[in-house]
Amino acid sequence: MPLDQFPAIQECIDAFRRLPGIGPKGAQRIVFHLLTQDPEAASQIAASCESIHVRVKICRKCHILVESEAGGENCAVCGVRDPSVICVVQEPADVFAIERAGGFRGRFHVLMGVISPLDGVNPEDLTIGDLVERIKEDGVNEVILALNPNMAGEGTSLYLAQILKPLGVRVTQLAQGLPMGSHLEYADELTLMRSIEGRREL
Amino acid sequence: MPLDQFPAIQECIDAFRRLPGIGPKGAQRIVFHLLTQDPEAASQIAASCESIHVRVKICRKCHILVESEAGGENCAVCGVRDPSVICVVQEPADVFAIERAGGFRGRFHVLMGVISPLDGVNPEDLTIGDLVERIKEDGVNEVILALNPNMAGEGTSLYLAQILKPLGVRVTQLAQGLPMGSHLEYADELTLMRSIEGRREL
Repeated sequence: MPLDQFPAIQECIDAFRRLPGIGPKGAQRIVFHLLTQDPEAASQIAASCESIHVRVKICRKCHILVESEAGGENCAVCGVRDPSVICVVQEPADVFAIERAGGFRGRFHVLMGVISPLDGVNPEDLTIGDLVERIKEDGVNEVILALNPNMAGEGTSLYLAQILKPLGVRVTQLAQGLPMGSHLEYADELTLMRSIEGRREL
Repeated sequence: MPLDQFPAIQECIDAFRRLPGIGPKGAQRIVFHLLTQDPEAASQIAASCESIHVRVKICRKCHILVESEAGGENCAVCGVRDPSVICVVQEPADVFAIERAGGFRGRFHVLMGVISPLDGVNPEDLTIGDLVERIKEDGVNEVILALNPNMAGEGTSLYLAQILKPLGVRVTQLAQGLPMGSHLEYADELTLMRSIEGRREL
């Protein structure tokens, strides 16, 4: 009586295995939990997953997430905030990280990825065209590049700088250096090098 | 624009957070993944979770999982296998672990938990009554207790032995000792003690 004689259980395990951070054992644990410990959780997840794509849309202009109750295709940020500064991020989730930090009053632009030819992601797969259009139309003064500080993020930032500077906007990048609360002793070489390069006058 | 202004996203994150092994960050990552990376995964999970309780039932007799296509309330094990030996386990998932090991030809009985007064689980919350009835009716010779080797499992095993022995059945417990492929040097004291107590003639 192996598990593969249970197609419904197996299908459910496979569905959970597709999610990030869930392995085969974790998926199995979740499905048995739904079956025996918390039967209501299954219907809650079903309802949420069923409706999430109906209730949450992506803003046509800046590509951040919008809940449809909030009003159609244009988001709360595009409508009201300072149009002269645009912060460029990789994923919709990054917008929430920057908002949590507070202090940024401008608008966003989600690239929907970074350039990575090995993964088959080329510049035309991203929302770079929309970004160029917004800069030309909205009177943007500064573009802040807030991509992840790794190889693909750095490469994409350099590519964007090359394209955007000729449009007459200031192109900046988030500071790279020591994270707050860290120990200099344990910092990696690259981070330390960047923090020396980026040192500032007090 | 904090995340709590997005009720649909928040509801979905909360639904995933209820599952075992998924924390707040993991749940958030899953929901953003469903929204932006793999929109089809959401509908697959919705469909699976919607149907899992309809397609999978629990056998009324032994309480192991049954897929309803396999035929109503009595399972494939209860119908055909040796009725004289019953293996008692804590959860339906444990049945698959024992089946994977192979070699066991008898029937199962799932307790649906272990006695744990601190968590509010008393003997009457488990399927002990059904087990006693089966032993009386089905001509059982041996009950193998296969509960987890921890405090609650050991306590429940002792309790069951007290109740079942007067019914005239042989009550045994899975051997406790060194797991295969382990190093004696790294074994914990309790495991080593049990392996000495349970030593056998070669």
